[in-house]
Order: sequence, then C-alpha cells, then structure tokens
Amino acid sequence: MAFDSNIKLGVLGGGQLGRMLIQSAIDFNLDVHIIDPDENAPCKHIATSFTVGKLTDYDSVMAFGKDKDVLTIEIENVNTKALKDLRDAGKKVYPQPEIIKLIQNKLHQKQFYAKNGIPTADFKATATKAAVAELKEMLPFVNKLETEGYDGRGVSVIRTEADLDKAFDKPSFVEKLVDFEKELAVIVARNEAGEVTTFPTVEMVFHPVHNLVEYLISPASISPEVEEKAQTLAKTVVNKLEMVGLLAIEMFLTKDGEILVNEIAPRTHNSGHQTIEGNVTSQFEQHLRAVLNWPLGNTETVVPAAMVNLLGEDGYTGEAQYEGMDKVLAQKGVHIHLYGKKLTKPFRKMGHATISDHDIAQLKEKINFVKEHLKIKA
Amino acid sequence: MAFDSNIKLGVLGGGQLGRMLIQSAIDFNLDVHIIDPDENAPCKHIATSFTVGKLTDYDSVMAFGKDKDVLTIEIENVNTKALKDLRDAGKKVYPQPEIIKLIQNKLHQKQFYAKNGIPTADFKATATKAAVAELKEMLPFVNKLETEGYDGRGVSVIRTEADLDKAFDKPSFVEKLVDFEKELAVIVARNEAGEVTTFPTVEMVFHPVHNLVEYLISPASISPEVEEKAQTLAKTVVNKLEMVGLLAIEMFLTKDGEILVNEIAPRTHNSGHQTIEGNVTSQFEQHLRAVLNWPLGNTETVVPAAMVNLLGEDGYTGEAQYEGMDKVLAQKGVHIHLYGKKLTKPFRKMGHATISDHDIAQLKEKINFVKEHLKIKA
Repeated sequence: MAFDSNIKLGVLGGGQLGRMLIQSAIDFNLDVHIIDPDENAPCKHIATSFTVGKLTDYDSVMAFGKDKDVLTIEIENVNTKALKDLRDAGKKVYPQPEIIKLIQNKLHQKQFYAKNGIPTADFKATATKAAVAELKEMLPFVNKLETEGYDGRGVSVIRTEADLDKAFDKPSFVEKLVDFEKELAVIVARNEAGEVTTFPTVEMVFHPVHNLVEYLISPASISPEVEEKAQTLAKTVVNKLEMVGLLAIEMFLTKDGEILVNEIAPRTHNSGHQTIEGNVTSQFEQHLRAVLNWPLGNTETVVPAAMVNLLGEDGYTGEAQYEGMDKVLAQKGVHIHLYGKKLTKPFRKMGHATISDHDIAQLKEKINFVKEHLKIKA
Repeated sequence: MAFDSNIKLGVLGGGQLGRMLIQSAIDFNLDVHIIDPDENAPCKHIATSFTVGKLTDYDSVMAFGKDKDVLTIEIENVNTKALKDLRDAGKKVYPQPEIIKLIQNKLHQKQFYAKNGIPTADFKATATKAAVAELKEMLPFVNKLETEGYDGRGVSVIRTEADLDKAFDKPSFVEKLVDFEKELAVIVARNEAGEVTTFPTVEMVFHPVHNLVEYLISPASISPEVEEKAQTLAKTVVNKLEMVGLLAIEMFLTKDGEILVNEIAPRTHNSGHQTIEGNVTSQFEQHLRAVLNWPLGNTETVVPAAMVNLLGEDGYTGEAQYEGMDKVLAQKGVHIHLYGKKLTKPFRKMGHATISDHDIAQLKEKINFVKEHLKIKA
C-alpha cells in the first residue's frame, strides 16, 4: 500500500490513545473515524467521524467497519469475530483479529510464550479459588484472571497463605512473583512488508499501591547487553506472532540479569507516550506507518525524556481543575498532554507530562516537581 | 490569567497556521473556534467550531467574537476596527488591534522602525509610478505596495531604469535593495506579564523566482556576535511595540555584518515551523502561551532542523497526489506536515517537511532528497 491520504481509517476505541493517534494523523491529511461506547470519549471532537457504539458488540463493529478501508484498535477488548468477518470482506485489519483474540486472554498469552520459547515467569492455569490454594508451593505469586484484566484490575498479589482468600474463583492462572530489578518496556512495530523496528527500551516505575505506571524514563539505565537482550526479545515476539502493527512488550529484568516477558499489548501504549518528544518518530506515527504499510520511521532517541501520568487526585470527582499548572508550564521542557476529559475521578488518567532534558538528574527532579505541584481536582 | 482549559479561544483565519495552532491546543484541552472565508480551509475539520466569514468584514468579525474570551489571528488581513470594539467590550485581543493595523501597512512599519531607531533599509514613500521614477538615484530598489502584499505579491524589484515600468502606480514606497549575505528570521514572544523569549535565529533560503521561502535551517550558521545582535534586535522590536503575542521578524544580514529588519508578522510564521520538532517549545504552543498569558516556554534547540515548504508542482491543478511520499517517509528524521488542502495548484503551500538531524551536512542532503523526490501533482 503506497501513501494515500484518501484512505478511510477506522479505529476501535476513542480514548487518549486514539486521540494522540488522530493528532499524528492530521499531519498526513488522514481521515480517522472512531467508534467508542462513551459519547464523551477523548476523540469525540477531533475525529473525522465519531460513532457511539459498543466495541464488543458484533453488529456495532460490523456496521462501523463496512465503509472503512483499514481498521485498527486502541484497546484490545473488542469483538474479534466482527473484525475477522470484516477482513474476510476485504478490509485490512491490523493487528490481525487472531492476535487480538490471543492477547485478550492472559493465559493464552502465557501459553504462547511457553510454546515459542519466549522467557516468562512460571505459571499454572487454575479454574477455582480452591485450585489456587493448592499451589501454595509456588508462593509468592500473582493470581490473574484470564480476561477482563486492565490497569490493575483482575490481578491479585498473593504473598503468603493468609492472602489466599484474595484469589479468584474464576478461570485464571497463577504466576510466580518475579523478584525483579527493574520493569522495562519495548515498543516494536512491524508492517505488512515485514519490516521491524523497535524503540529504545524504557524503564517504568509503578505506583506501589495503584499498580499504574507512575513515571518512566527513556532510555532505560541498563547495560548495553541488557538493552540488546530486550530489543532482540521484542523482535522475536512480534515475529513469532507475525503481527502487523504496534506491539508494546512489558518485561521484567530479574536480579540475575534475565529478561522475562510480562504482558503485551497490540497497540500504542502508555509506555510509549514520551516518544512524541523524545524520539525521531512517535509511537503514534509508527502505528499509522505500520498498519498502513508505509516505511517504518526511525526510532532513535532525540533527547532523554521522562513521562508522568497525570491522574485525578484522590477524593475529587467532578469537573476537572488543573491546580498548579502555571508553575509546571514555567519549567523548562515540560510538555503537557491533556486527554480532553471533562470529569475527573480518583486516579483517572487525565493526561500525561513528558519532560525532556539531556541531564537525567534534572529529569528526575522535574518529575518530582510536576508530581508535587500539579493536582487535578474538582 | 491562570491556566484554564475552559477559555474560548477565537482565531481569525483557518489556514495551515491555524491548523497547527489547533494541533498544539489539543494538548491543553483548549477549544479553538475558527473563522475563515474559505469553506474548505485547513482548519475546518479539526476546529471546535468553524464559521465561514470574511475576516475584513466588520459585522462578520463582531459576530464571531461576541461569545469568545480571547481572540487572536493567523493572518494580518483582518478588520481591526471590529477587533478594537471587541476589546472595548471586554475581550482579550492579542496581538493588539493597533499593532495589526500598523503592520498591515508596510510603509507604516518602515516609519515605525525609523522613529524607534530600529535599523532597516533606506526607504521613501511614493504615491505614483511617476514618483517612483524620480527616485532613480536610489537604484537598485524594491517598490512595495503599502498594503495587500503577501507571499511575494505587491513587491516589484527595480534593478535598473529599464525596470521602472514595473513600478506601482499606487500608495507605495521604494526601499534600497540590500546586498545581503543572508536572510535571517527570529521569532519572539511576549505575554501580558511582559515576559519575552526569542527562538534561536534561523537562516532562510528563498526560491530565486517565486519569492517564497524555499527552505530554512535552524539554528543559523552565524557568529555568536551576529546571533546576539539578531536576538537583541528582535526583543527591541517587540518591546517597542509593547505587543502581546508572537512576532516573526525577517532580517537581512548585510555583507558588512549589519542587521536590518526587513518585515515583521504578528503571528506564527513559516520561518518557525521547524520548532515543532527542533525546539523544546513549538512556535504554536508559544503563541498560545503568549496570548493566554501563561508562562512562556523554553525555546532552546533540541536538534538542528531544516524546513522545506511542500509546494504544488507547476503545471498541475486539481486533487492533490503525493508522488514519491513513500521514498521520503523512509528517510530518517523526515517529518511530514500536510495542511489538509484537497486541491493543489502551482506553488500552493500544501504542507512542509521538517528534517531533524544532528549532522548539518546530512540535513542539507535530505532537503535535496525531499525536493527531488516528493512531487505534488493532480
């Protein structure tokens, strides 16, 4: 597929990832059509067309897809049967519906790694709470639901026998808790032509309680050997999947210097937001390039960057106010990205800030400055 | 004025400058309302609201402005009387209507420089073609219309007596042709609080025939002394004007190392497009920061960048096709910005490409690559 501005691109999901994709698509005169169940989704005002519809509903997705040329996603929780049928009807659908379906199920993801020799933490499938309790010898572990697990939901950390009560009584699996040194992520892209590029590995720091990325730094402070290993692993995963599109791979670096795949997402990802300012090509432009089969963009770092999620302050629900924004805007190299959400609630992702600076110590200082001063209240 | 996402920003003009302003405004959840006479203007699909109306018409501008909080421009050719009345009615209007009015008239611009000791090429006002002919002793010179001169229109180069026939028979002035070494530009911003920042000086290369910027390089290859002089001059101009907003200042560097102001534009400018990729803050975000009285952003260079206008190929009029785009997209660091114009015509500005690279020789090579390979035809 050669460059063509007249292509009709349809995106399932109209949240912040879709919004930033549209921001990139504007540069290419691309029409981006969005479907999302939320009539106030972040993409609403900037999409070429905006359809309210359930992404898991076969008929809604079919109706949305029928007049599009290329379909892609910004969330995995979509009706893959409809996407298959749209592909059979001649649409380009990337990532491929089979891959979305595989990734929707975290157990199937794990089984895929095991089958393909991709290093990942030991795991065992479980169907009931009682079955989890029988796996005491694996403690400490994480009990994860097969499906429905997003942003910290559907995940229960079981450290000791006393925690076993928190196990799920549903199709799930347990995964040995990894005593990791760092959490890393690599975003890899692959186009129809089979071209593969990876972004430099980033390092994520999670909030200890809410299990959301608190901030990340790109590039990661890791040895060239670990970097090489992480990059190679990312390419292996995307090639084994034979996926077309963008794939975010979250990894653990263990204390023994091993790298294990944690989870993957077949789309743009929170761990790639800093590429907008920090890399030659952003993850959003790369996603467009991959699904439209354009040449992939160069991913080199232009400037080291840190990314902080801007979350709704605990205890506030209502129309968002951005307290301290003026102070933050006065800091050199702070780039604000708000997601167009009118209403804030505790820990809701309302935006992110990217801080770019050649001095890593300065980056960390400014992360703290942003976190201390910018409060999203109602 | 503290940061407030609920502000209603109105922009007079919906071309590419407005379009890139909106792209930046999305990051701040800002509603941007546009008025433009062209029902297919580049901003049409991405503005919060889009009004078709004449910018020089008092009633259209008044009707557009009445429910906005802040008004700004992306083109100087607007009804300044309406803008004054809107300001008197309590709206914030930046740049100030008086300054827009001053700049609309190139002779008044020149008189302003003369009065304020701002170095500029010698000039003399003329009312008729005959009056121009009487100024032979100033040859070679440029004869410029007082008003209506945009993008090379309203400007006549008179090198010898034989050219005198090309002089205007209208209110105009003659300006001694400057034997310049380079053409430079500095973009300076000033907010209500009086904070002033300049972007690094850029170097422009004009097309020898069409009198449009052909490409520019940022930062300019000039000595620290010349850089200092250009930066100081830019600050002097904005401070003398007491302007709030963004001001682009085109300058000549003479062969004697002097700097003369050529023309100014009280808005985002073609000579600042490369700031999107090349500088910590883009000119578009800086424009928002200035007119909304937020702290101004840091303007340092992140990576050297070159900018090429993507013009409609001569001889083609009709629906635009981007020949060679795939080749160009495969080049490292080429950033494409298309302006959403369906129809191309000879030399129409259809977009621009910014090329970012730490190696200046590479930058120049890639400019040539883009110019050779990317052809906009119909």
